[in-house]
Amino acid sequence: MPHQVWTQSYGKSRVRLAKVDRDTDVHQYTELSVDVELDGDFDAVYTQGDNSLALPTDTMKNTVYAFARELDPCELETFAWTLGSHFVENFDHISHAAIKITETPWERLVIDGEAHPHAFSGSSTERNTCHAVITAPPKEGEEPEGAIECGLEGLTLLKTTDSGFSKFLKDQYTTLPEVNDRIFATTLSAKWVYNDTPDNWRAIRERIRTILIREFSARFSPSVQATLFEMASAVLDAEPAVEEINLTMPNLHRHLINLASFDLDNPNILFLPTDEPHGNITASICRERAEDAHAHDHDHG
Amino acid sequence: MPHQVWTQSYGKSRVRLAKVDRDTDVHQYTELSVDVELDGDFDAVYTQGDNSLALPTDTMKNTVYAFARELDPCELETFAWTLGSHFVENFDHISHAAIKITETPWERLVIDGEAHPHAFSGSSTERNTCHAVITAPPKEGEEPEGAIECGLEGLTLLKTTDSGFSKFLKDQYTTLPEVNDRIFATTLSAKWVYNDTPDNWRAIRERIRTILIREFSARFSPSVQATLFEMASAVLDAEPAVEEINLTMPNLHRHLINLASFDLDNPNILFLPTDEPHGNITASICRERAEDAHAHDHDHG
Amino acid sequence: MPHQVWTQSYGKSRVRLAKVDRDTDVHQYTELSVDVELDGDFDAVYTQGDNSLALPTDTMKNTVYAFARELDPCELETFAWTLGSHFVENFDHISHAAIKITETPWERLVIDGEAHPHAFSGSSTERNTCHAVITAPPKEGEEPEGAIECGLEGLTLLKTTDSGFSKFLKDQYTTLPEVNDRIFATTLSAKWVYNDTPDNWRAIRERIRTILIREFSARFSPSVQATLFEMASAVLDAEPAVEEINLTMPNLHRHLINLASFDLDNPNILFLPTDEPHGNITASICRERAEDAHAHDHDHG
Amino acid sequence: MPHQVWTQSYGKSRVRLAKVDRDTDVHQYTELSVDVELDGDFDAVYTQGDNSLALPTDTMKNTVYAFARELDPCELETFAWTLGSHFVENFDHISHAAIKITETPWERLVIDGEAHPHAFSGSSTERNTCHAVITAPPKEGEEPEGAIECGLEGLTLLKTTDSGFSKFLKDQYTTLPEVNDRIFATTLSAKWVYNDTPDNWRAIRERIRTILIREFSARFSPSVQATLFEMASAVLDAEPAVEEINLTMPNLHRHLINLASFDLDNPNILFLPTDEPHGNITASICRERAEDAHAHDHDHG
Repeated sequence: MPHQVWTQSYGKSRVRLAKVDRDTDVHQYTELSVDVELDGDFDAVYTQGDNSLALPTDTMKNTVYAFARELDPCELETFAWTLGSHFVENFDHISHAAIKITETPWERLVIDGEAHPHAFSGSSTERNTCHAVITAPPKEGEEPEGAIECGLEGLTLLKTTDSGFSKFLKDQYTTLPEVNDRIFATTLSAKWVYNDTPDNWRAIRERIRTILIREFSARFSPSVQATLFEMASAVLDAEPAVEEINLTMPNLHRHLINLASFDLDNPNILFLPTDEPHGNITASICRERAEDAHAHDHDHG
Repeated sequence: MPHQVWTQSYGKSRVRLAKVDRDTDVHQYTELSVDVELDGDFDAVYTQGDNSLALPTDTMKNTVYAFARELDPCELETFAWTLGSHFVENFDHISHAAIKITETPWERLVIDGEAHPHAFSGSSTERNTCHAVITAPPKEGEEPEGAIECGLEGLTLLKTTDSGFSKFLKDQYTTLPEVNDRIFATTLSAKWVYNDTPDNWRAIRERIRTILIREFSARFSPSVQATLFEMASAVLDAEPAVEEINLTMPNLHRHLINLASFDLDNPNILFLPTDEPHGNITASICRERAEDAHAHDHDHG
Repeated sequence: MPHQVWTQSYGKSRVRLAKVDRDTDVHQYTELSVDVELDGDFDAVYTQGDNSLALPTDTMKNTVYAFARELDPCELETFAWTLGSHFVENFDHISHAAIKITETPWERLVIDGEAHPHAFSGSSTERNTCHAVITAPPKEGEEPEGAIECGLEGLTLLKTTDSGFSKFLKDQYTTLPEVNDRIFATTLSAKWVYNDTPDNWRAIRERIRTILIREFSARFSPSVQATLFEMASAVLDAEPAVEEINLTMPNLHRHLINLASFDLDNPNILFLPTDEPHGNITASICRERAEDAHAHDHDHG
Repeated sequence: MPHQVWTQSYGKSRVRLAKVDRDTDVHQYTELSVDVELDGDFDAVYTQGDNSLALPTDTMKNTVYAFARELDPCELETFAWTLGSHFVENFDHISHAAIKITETPWERLVIDGEAHPHAFSGSSTERNTCHAVITAPPKEGEEPEGAIECGLEGLTLLKTTDSGFSKFLKDQYTTLPEVNDRIFATTLSAKWVYNDTPDNWRAIRERIRTILIREFSARFSPSVQATLFEMASAVLDAEPAVEEINLTMPNLHRHLINLASFDLDNPNILFLPTDEPHGNITASICRERAEDAHAHDHDHG
């Protein structure tokens, strides 16, 4: 009985590279990990063992290196776009190229108040991300189409107060007490899309990050959800080029430790930090759209 | 300017539990990690700080525990279904409940040829998975609907020969030599859906796993893709209840080490195992469907 | 003010290699990660920037590869010894070479009851270890001296009963209830030294592992400590070539979940598996020695 | 045949806690993970299943919590000392208590140029460490003795130039080319001991860290070893209270990528960052000591 390839993608993951810009004595250092995934007319590779249309994943790796030498990979978005376009423009049978870039940020060292020309620290868990999907042009000679999603991951934030959770829904399994003062800790992931090409991809990234941090700490949080919405809304308010932003905010619980057995009180002073289980809140916030376009009833898979 | 919640889900992740079945002297031990995610009418939680419809994620955790006490969590699929149904059936404003279960397999110890009644080893990286999405019934009084995806992760396989990659597409960035004998190593993830309720969820899981391992090692592999297709096809051939199966197979390269500098040959004997970069092949294979249903042109995001 | 190099070691870590023995159609596959660390007269490298006695760590890597091609790395102990001896024998200024090998075990697949000639699974968290320290011979022309410590790591074991902890010391901070039936879970690490060269390094490893597993599950455990001692003693009893064995056994707690709030009992049925905090028990057990050699009063750093 | 407990330690690991100092509106937040290990007269626990002298590891956890409530855990060194002293002072049979503290640093957020009173970021991989070993006083009524080792881990540093490695020792396995310009990347771990009690434990930590970073980037590095020595020496020069400092500096290679196949040059511009294999340099540097005390000939185990 014949079977068919319903969906596929193949590519090279974790292609790491570092580029030094040494045009002046003040060096720039950029470090990326790139994933390439291709889709198109690859059925024969699967069903017939026919590799004649299979571009090796090793070639994808080489292509990343060569493009990184010739282009500026520091601008993640244009690098991803150009790299992805290469595949759909040069091979008729490749319909989609997905390029995912994860940047490890390196911060220039400041020594005795002076920015160092070529020394950096890389001790942050934060990552900048860019996910571009490039589609072959509908007609020959036209430009490829596609979408770019920018983001950040691993930004861990905490506030020791100005957070509570009360007046919530209760059922027979609810034991959580209402609290008006708790620690709020999260490791933020954000992804957003633009409705227009930003003037400066780095600058708008930096502004979005600043807004997210500022709003996280700005006022009382009645729930992770409400703070998430405020953080996303502030980005949409301040940056007209952002069309939609998705935030994922795990609730990394700090539980109050009960010290009564040792005749000690604990007025919100000593907590148990935990990794598991954790709450998990994720939402995409967008500018107001027509009601019939609402997404609530799909995308649950 | 008003913004809106376009999509959201919230829940509790990494709810771990272990259940001992001690009905007889031969104990059973099951260990799970459960994620619960809910969707529905939660806009006010985000936009107005109104928690009156927000069931705490702590309550979800408690619900998992209580259901695990009363039900048999060892049957992942029915446990996930019952747990998810609880949320959509008991709360009008909850439209979807997604339950993801990851099981750590514990293998009964065999001591001097005898199965031990209550001692187990848990040194495997493999995991059994089950992802159920339950949807509120369209009309009151009807049954909830939904879908269950079963799977496994972390099954690392390798063969030292019967694998090659040649006659592939080449461009100006291609440097990979054609080889007719290479090591093929992968860490398999599989996900599949049924078109009918299996008689025995554990038994069919075990049969699918056996088929995947058998086909991986059965014959010459001209590419990861071709072997993936054979593995998936063999499952579809042997198990009529499986409607579609998705396999992800990273190509975990073992590179031949060049020893010429030390006047040593290396006839496919000494290799460098690497984790990055790695090839990545993923495909869903299904029984033949009408052409116009083909998925190639979407789902690239 | 002059400073001095008090201790140093330098070398190459995580030198990975895989070797295929294809002498017959039934292939053997061995996969190792090797660390090399050297000590000796290296002060000038540190204090004067004089590299003339600094053998590059890249050379150590190459040496591992070349020796792995020519020798049988599958016998970890002799491979480590020969590799370490190379450095102290060939370089007068190298006084010590420490070789640490970590082996990832790959298990031959059994398909339809038949051992497969060249396909393996590698889904175990267990590792075989060997740590050899080779010392330059006291006089030229003599053999190098040294010590070899063999071991295993990552062997996760659990028993659902036959374990308790009671009649323990209590103070004002003690809240732990006495229990006569609890789950006992651990991830065992073992290290041992021989007083004589074993006939077959693989065979004795396998026998020691079997004894450890058997004793873990053999009888009631009044404490992790008592079971650790029984496991170690059984190895010393059965294997005269083992002089001393060190076991590390974290107590990976499974806490009974309190379900009283949901009107459910929990007669040792439902548990919370945790990774942190965990108990940690480590001890070296040896054949009886003279009292004045006792180690209790040192080695705490 | 009787066996004996040659060495042992037991305790609780990964006891996590967070403490909020809310004495003023400007909160302080401290987050630690504490390991407690005890040694003493515990043989009967192992050999006879007699728990009467076994203080439960759960009690150690409770003790950490209670002491953290009453003391200032933010001063790692005095907290570790006091905690360890508790065990050796209150139990005659406990001869040693080892307390290891790992602090996750949280940095106060700066919003629009203003330090935030209660919001922090915790995205750093760096950790502050303190390892104290407290010994029971030789005579009753005397003070416990002990040693404290302070340190930091996970400080990743890189410089894009001012580093080379040449004029090194070569043998038949050496293929490494001499280079006068290479990237130098490391993840620094440091441990040091004081010869006197510092006035301010936090302040001297911070000064040592600053010196290490400054010296890493100060001048041309002819080898990791030479830079390590300069970094350590600068600490000893600037801080008379530091008696000895141990630095571990893996050489996290950035390999120049060969682009000749693509007709591209690569004048020190594009590199492959790798995690394995890596060089590993570790040394303890101390103030000058008598020659006969030299440590070179021992401590290789």
